[in-house]
Amino acid sequence: MRTSIATVSLSGSLTEKLAAAARAGFDGVEIFENDLLASPLAPEEVRARCADLGLSIDLYQPMRDIEAVPAEVFEGNLRRARHKFELMRRLGCDTVLVCSSVHPLAADDDALAAYQLRELATLAEEFGIRVAYEALAWGRHVSTYDHAWRIVREADHPALGTCLDSFHILARGSDPKGIEDIPGEKIFFLQLADAPLMAMDVLQWSRHYRCFPGQGGLDVTGLVRHVRAAGYDGPLSLEVFNDVFRQAEAGPTAVDAHRSLLMLQEAAGIAALPRRVVPTGVAFAELVTPDAEPVAALLGALGFARTARHRSKPVDLWQQGEARVLVNTGPAARRDGTQLAAIGLESPDPAGAARRAEALLAPVLPRRRATEDAPLDAVAAPDGTELFFCATDRPGLPSWTGDFRPVAHPEAAGHVHRVDHLALTQPWHQFDEAALFHRTVLGLHASDSVDVADPYGLFRSRPVTNDDGSVRIALSVGPAPTDDTARAQHIALATDDVVAAARAFRAAGGRLLAVPANYHDDLAARFEFTDGELETYRELGILYDRDAGGGFRHCYTETVGRVFFELVQRDTGYQGYGAQNAPVRLAAQHVQRTVR
Amino acid sequence: MRTSIATVSLSGSLTEKLAAAARAGFDGVEIFENDLLASPLAPEEVRARCADLGLSIDLYQPMRDIEAVPAEVFEGNLRRARHKFELMRRLGCDTVLVCSSVHPLAADDDALAAYQLRELATLAEEFGIRVAYEALAWGRHVSTYDHAWRIVREADHPALGTCLDSFHILARGSDPKGIEDIPGEKIFFLQLADAPLMAMDVLQWSRHYRCFPGQGGLDVTGLVRHVRAAGYDGPLSLEVFNDVFRQAEAGPTAVDAHRSLLMLQEAAGIAALPRRVVPTGVAFAELVTPDAEPVAALLGALGFARTARHRSKPVDLWQQGEARVLVNTGPAARRDGTQLAAIGLESPDPAGAARRAEALLAPVLPRRRATEDAPLDAVAAPDGTELFFCATDRPGLPSWTGDFRPVAHPEAAGHVHRVDHLALTQPWHQFDEAALFHRTVLGLHASDSVDVADPYGLFRSRPVTNDDGSVRIALSVGPAPTDDTARAQHIALATDDVVAAARAFRAAGGRLLAVPANYHDDLAARFEFTDGELETYRELGILYDRDAGGGFRHCYTETVGRVFFELVQRDTGYQGYGAQNAPVRLAAQHVQRTVR
Repeated sequence: MRTSIATVSLSGSLTEKLAAAARAGFDGVEIFENDLLASPLAPEEVRARCADLGLSIDLYQPMRDIEAVPAEVFEGNLRRARHKFELMRRLGCDTVLVCSSVHPLAADDDALAAYQLRELATLAEEFGIRVAYEALAWGRHVSTYDHAWRIVREADHPALGTCLDSFHILARGSDPKGIEDIPGEKIFFLQLADAPLMAMDVLQWSRHYRCFPGQGGLDVTGLVRHVRAAGYDGPLSLEVFNDVFRQAEAGPTAVDAHRSLLMLQEAAGIAALPRRVVPTGVAFAELVTPDAEPVAALLGALGFARTARHRSKPVDLWQQGEARVLVNTGPAARRDGTQLAAIGLESPDPAGAARRAEALLAPVLPRRRATEDAPLDAVAAPDGTELFFCATDRPGLPSWTGDFRPVAHPEAAGHVHRVDHLALTQPWHQFDEAALFHRTVLGLHASDSVDVADPYGLFRSRPVTNDDGSVRIALSVGPAPTDDTARAQHIALATDDVVAAARAFRAAGGRLLAVPANYHDDLAARFEFTDGELETYRELGILYDRDAGGGFRHCYTETVGRVFFELVQRDTGYQGYGAQNAPVRLAAQHVQRTVR
Repeated sequence: MRTSIATVSLSGSLTEKLAAAARAGFDGVEIFENDLLASPLAPEEVRARCADLGLSIDLYQPMRDIEAVPAEVFEGNLRRARHKFELMRRLGCDTVLVCSSVHPLAADDDALAAYQLRELATLAEEFGIRVAYEALAWGRHVSTYDHAWRIVREADHPALGTCLDSFHILARGSDPKGIEDIPGEKIFFLQLADAPLMAMDVLQWSRHYRCFPGQGGLDVTGLVRHVRAAGYDGPLSLEVFNDVFRQAEAGPTAVDAHRSLLMLQEAAGIAALPRRVVPTGVAFAELVTPDAEPVAALLGALGFARTARHRSKPVDLWQQGEARVLVNTGPAARRDGTQLAAIGLESPDPAGAARRAEALLAPVLPRRRATEDAPLDAVAAPDGTELFFCATDRPGLPSWTGDFRPVAHPEAAGHVHRVDHLALTQPWHQFDEAALFHRTVLGLHASDSVDVADPYGLFRSRPVTNDDGSVRIALSVGPAPTDDTARAQHIALATDDVVAAARAFRAAGGRLLAVPANYHDDLAARFEFTDGELETYRELGILYDRDAGGGFRHCYTETVGRVFFELVQRDTGYQGYGAQNAPVRLAAQHVQRTVR
């Protein structure tokens, strides 16, 4: 189906919004009146700009407080409408949105509403314009889609139809099944928005917290199925008001938006995408750093051995069990200091995974292929992290390790056997986008967001995982937009014996994050430990958590650049990431930075 | 009464919080458990730190999910409680907060709850500790203060009392009158928080949107009167969870917090403050600038004349009717570029106004007094703007104009007669503080906040005014923390003929902000104008608004540094500031900056 987006969903000037929508692949736009009023472009210029960009103008919106009003008010409304219809003719737009009235003088009188909407449609018809009447969830007398449709049916005018909006319908808890009783040709327009499930005033909820389909808790896909079943074949159009998007750059938001519609069409059976290829493990984590020494010291103390060197690039492979860390001192490293720049995902079908990512608008990265390099399919995640779809020594697939030449090394003798999870703090504007990306592009499951208190503001954290937990990525976001170079990242390494791992790390010269004694006093109050256990945790700075499935023991190294490591001993049934302990860890990291 | 604040209300580490609370004048603190757990200070060290700072530790909080639980769970609870009571002994704190249970196994059984709380109190008594039991608004079975009190009465133990919390009581709409039926000595503690009136889930509302008394919509003062009438004489303690405060510096937040308690005590008749002295007009607005030329050019084109020069400082007085603008090129100007640095407020009792401001914790500025300077009482507003309480040529009071020596000047022949309003964008963290400050310190009325859409994010705006509108200050705040030097400020000048004023400004070489033609097309649709009126507005970039009381016509100059001017023609009955037009103005200012 054709895709469209309301200009109010994007940040910036009207011209910035149009450019971003076109670049992200939308077919059309809804022009929000205030965006036009604030633009120095004349309507004819907007029309020409859209034509140049290959965008149709699918809707002009909104016209308000039109119907069920006293005759003298309605007379003014028709006057106003005539102005707007002239404007729409200049704009080259043939459908106008009329929201159900919130006018203080509006009467609870469907016959009057139908009569006045018919009058409006008669006027619109002279201009070749169609009127799409929509029930606002907070409309004074008309607040449900079926009520709006009854009025449209009663008015019975060819230039009058209804506009359906997933937010207004689902936020009120209306049953969308009844949409199928509306003739498709009388559904003039379909606006889509999702929203997180929140118990709050519906108007505030609508104006500040809408999000793109798949990012909230409403069943937008189910609604679209009903609208299709009714015979609607107009555009799928996004209309999202959101305080974060208002501040974000229009370009990435538009991509995020278009991706949500592609995913929606797949879920609703409207259009297919290359099939989902779920990663089956973490092949490697790649750190870029301008100075390999501090990272090498950390990895060495953690029990990793430098096992190989890339054939043509300044990249070392450090390995311990199935945990592999690449240390890259190439050109990218000079720019941003030490950071987690790439993740290798073990993929049953690397090329297929990349095809799906590309179809879902992930930027495809130039293939890394030197003379002997194995082909590597890679895309960029919303936060810029490079995701490589690859295979490690699997039959029938080229292995990325083929690009590396083994180097002499001592036997790795540490306690780490694989990567438990990766934690990436997202840019402030892209948290919801990141979760949707990891779900739709990688096929991971997203858990609910949890709040985590840092001494200087609340973080939100949302893990995404595959079925067996062999890929776990903890996405988080800080309390406000900040300098991206300050965003922390960490690599959590799985061990079967965190005490031994911590002791070995320390014996090798590593420094563990100091945890306040008060924390361990509290553990003593909350849990029963075996003799000496708590004293050991206290000595090493090991944190403890427990859920119904088991226990979780973990400790942290110091930070290099943006990156630190965590040692994790996870009982099989434990599902979390120690979020309960995160405030203590964050506070201790602040202390560590201050002390330095 | 003694004042206290929960450490959770402030940002930072525990030591930062304690220092900020002491500096702002609090007598004590509630220690939030997580703050202690995350602190490297041992409980004894926290105790000593508080003693050094002159702070008592009034409450340790919270203890959760204690009562009405199965016996084996309660056994664990007592074990945990013993640990905490030992901790409290080390801390030197004798009262613990117990919140009503949200435990999934908690029974709806008051007798069991009373029995277990009595057991807890018996244990507490051994440690010399009192247990204050509080009803959480979302408690599983106990969610109202009177229910919590019935259980405390039934338990009937000297070490068990109740804790009242204004948020939990008022957010649920409970009638606080019944508090007077509780014996004062059984009210062990009183926690205070306000909140904006919002229809949302009470737990989310409580955790993210609480604010200090006077900053929200709850009748905290009325509640405190009832608690006093019951005979309570413990501390008034603030417990506020708020996403903004979490990110703000602890120092200013603590001052804001303590001010709210001073005001609350005045309102509740507990403690008097120096009487309110409401300003009666704007004596002057003072711009500081490193380069007087662009400002002088603007003022000249607006019809101002340079009428006088300060006797000892590089400050010029520009005047037109009752509108006076000081242009200061002194040392402060070098630092921050052109900005509105000070406001002179016409005061019936300048010294009295300053006394009240000082009592309400406004920083008192060093008096400006050179050899012949008139004494000037001045304080700093939360955003750093200097407020001078002064008199302009009024009998019996020294006039600030006495410091100025007239200079030869042409007759001012413009159309401006006074300052209509001043608009100040506040630092992100201090919007609610600013509104409370202007209400309590200056005695102005605050209107409701309105949202204003900028192309790059939502602004909030909240005007404060005196009774006759001769002092109007529009406070606003941007969508996210930004560089303070980017915060816009403007001076709106009142005229009886905005068309003549705009024409004269332009004839004198001034440049008005260009307003898109689409805006005026829309005006034509919305309003009826006399012949040629709209064309004139279009030509000059004049914006138009109307409310029940009359019309409002206004236009804008270009911006110098952070400052621009507005010409305003306000019909007597019009109450607003043209907020409806602000999105168009903000977009036009973005265009203006881009074009440059």
